[in-house]
Amino acid sequence: MTDNRPTQDTGLRGVTIASTRVSDVDGTAGRLIYRGYLIQDLAENATFEEVCHLLLYEKLPQEHELKDFKARLTAERDIPPELIAALKTRPRDALPMDILQSGVAMLAHHDPDIQDTSRDALFQKALKLIAKLPTILAAWDRIRNGNEPLASNPRLDHAANFLYMFNGTVPDEELARFFDICLILHAEHSFNASTFAAREVASTRAHMYAAVAAAVGSLSGELHGGANARVMEMLMEIGSLENVEAYVNQTFDSGKKLMGLGHAVYTTDDPRAHILAPISQRLGQRTGQTKWYEISKLLEIKGKEAFKRRKGRDIYVNVDFYSASLYYSMGIPFDLFTGLFAISRIAGWTAHVIEEQFADAAPKPMLYRPESEYIGDYCGPEVCKFVPLDER
Amino acid sequence: MTDNRPTQDTGLRGVTIASTRVSDVDGTAGRLIYRGYLIQDLAENATFEEVCHLLLYEKLPQEHELKDFKARLTAERDIPPELIAALKTRPRDALPMDILQSGVAMLAHHDPDIQDTSRDALFQKALKLIAKLPTILAAWDRIRNGNEPLASNPRLDHAANFLYMFNGTVPDEELARFFDICLILHAEHSFNASTFAAREVASTRAHMYAAVAAAVGSLSGELHGGANARVMEMLMEIGSLENVEAYVNQTFDSGKKLMGLGHAVYTTDDPRAHILAPISQRLGQRTGQTKWYEISKLLEIKGKEAFKRRKGRDIYVNVDFYSASLYYSMGIPFDLFTGLFAISRIAGWTAHVIEEQFADAAPKPMLYRPESEYIGDYCGPEVCKFVPLDER
Repeated sequence: MTDNRPTQDTGLRGVTIASTRVSDVDGTAGRLIYRGYLIQDLAENATFEEVCHLLLYEKLPQEHELKDFKARLTAERDIPPELIAALKTRPRDALPMDILQSGVAMLAHHDPDIQDTSRDALFQKALKLIAKLPTILAAWDRIRNGNEPLASNPRLDHAANFLYMFNGTVPDEELARFFDICLILHAEHSFNASTFAAREVASTRAHMYAAVAAAVGSLSGELHGGANARVMEMLMEIGSLENVEAYVNQTFDSGKKLMGLGHAVYTTDDPRAHILAPISQRLGQRTGQTKWYEISKLLEIKGKEAFKRRKGRDIYVNVDFYSASLYYSMGIPFDLFTGLFAISRIAGWTAHVIEEQFADAAPKPMLYRPESEYIGDYCGPEVCKFVPLDER
Repeated sequence: MTDNRPTQDTGLRGVTIASTRVSDVDGTAGRLIYRGYLIQDLAENATFEEVCHLLLYEKLPQEHELKDFKARLTAERDIPPELIAALKTRPRDALPMDILQSGVAMLAHHDPDIQDTSRDALFQKALKLIAKLPTILAAWDRIRNGNEPLASNPRLDHAANFLYMFNGTVPDEELARFFDICLILHAEHSFNASTFAAREVASTRAHMYAAVAAAVGSLSGELHGGANARVMEMLMEIGSLENVEAYVNQTFDSGKKLMGLGHAVYTTDDPRAHILAPISQRLGQRTGQTKWYEISKLLEIKGKEAFKRRKGRDIYVNVDFYSASLYYSMGIPFDLFTGLFAISRIAGWTAHVIEEQFADAAPKPMLYRPESEYIGDYCGPEVCKFVPLDER
């Protein structure tokens, strides 16, 4: 196995493990493409529903297709009363991502087609998950605050309906569109850790809920989706503009990293951060609280300067950096930020599970079963000999 | 990325991605080692509790350590009443592995140390999961049959207690020991798909429950843990000894595979199958129903012969092959077989999560973030240009 050594213990960085038609991340060029389309083009012109259709069905929908797709999504929004009953048994201090993981796993219990492995059934599961994940998140926030979950509002589009189920009030058009853009921007990012987890589970021919529950677990980690909540904690710790520079220096002096700066793939600007920054600013203006945007902006400048000075190279903000102040300005508690990421990325996860289980492209994906190198030296080069309990 | 092509779309077969001290599978020699010890040695001499201690703490326990470890496991067996309440909300026809995945995710909600990332807290989570997973499975089987779950019996060891919570009767020593051996045999198998899923999720610094829930999802797939239930379905379809040969020929004629024959790693005898076969036979004798063992035995012979004749090479039975008739003879419904796999493999999963998050060996594991090759040709070599809805 020694000939494969370069890939060992490096988290598969730089190792191309699969081909995909879903998306392309060109980290050097700072370019993100969903099924042929630049993310900037989609964020400017498409809706989240169109992007979901694009990711699942590999094309932007025609008018009648979009109408049908939206009707199917809307019809699938509500969750079974038994699932709400289960959520009500949960301790109120449970972490929202843990609720979401259990919620996805429980959705499987209610799907009458759970064992149907046909292509149609797979697409239907994707649709259900995209439709119901926001409902679980909104329901949980209401339940933990002692309120009854709200039924979805069929007159509202996907983004607006989430904000309605969450807040109890219908958002205005600008707010709904901003959230719609956030959903588009976070929807897909090739073989990131959560998507890889989903594909890995799907490769055993486990069903889509099992795969997506794995993805939710992966996203919850602070090196992945959990980072956006960490960014907000950092902004709150900084607290005001005059503390930014000192915070940057203290952080780097103690060998730590600034949350939201740097990315595993991008070595230049993350195209999503550029779209989020002005939205964060505008939302701050709407609420009369531009402080978090301003701290973020100054932190970006000072953080980049300090990094360049100390390390001699550039660093860039990632998608989590401005989404933190943005979501906070929308009145969303920061322990739900990663959940917002999930209700968007569900589109990418499901598209990848479909590709994993029904790829037309040869060669067909196989069960992920990597090798490891055994370095246990418990009895030197020999196997150990069992010693009875009373002789140990 | 073209220089990495050999690893593409082949499920990482033959690619060494990490070093591990937990176990070694030598597929060519048919050798399986847990932390230095041959599986045959452990199956013959150790108990499951000793094996759990070995896997987690890297040594067989001394007498006082074992006493303490068992006391801690026993104290953690029962699950919170709120979790039982949640299980009672679940549809009775839910798949047991889906119940188990949601159950693991829900256990996280009840852990007061959920955000404690210390080494001690990590080991305590491992202990809780090993202790409580059998309880969830047994409780679910009782709930779906309209019975109240039973409290654990602190006088019984781990294996015997599961059978007690499941059946409501204390098993005799031989039965308890047979099940103990099954738990030992399935406890660990290096970077199989479910363990890889657990490590992948743990690599984002998600907590152990999130990682184990992913592993349960991965195990549920029929190319992985789900195979043992498929073996039993096959045995029942065959139904009697005289149908074996025809079944083998029909299966191979139609280009299908015999369930339980062949393995992703072993190219010779799976050492676990040899230990399970006589136990299956003995359990058949105990119940006066040796038919399933006998069908299995003949199927092994005829399957191997036919494979050799047709493909010109040898094939061997894997761990799932004899565990099917064995568990069936124990009176366990076959939709719980994969769950039995899970309540054993939890020992390996937790040991791997600990290794992933607290490896002493350099280099430290990194977040799994592989590359993919984008092959989307939606607009040829160019990016697509967004077309407004009414012009599509």
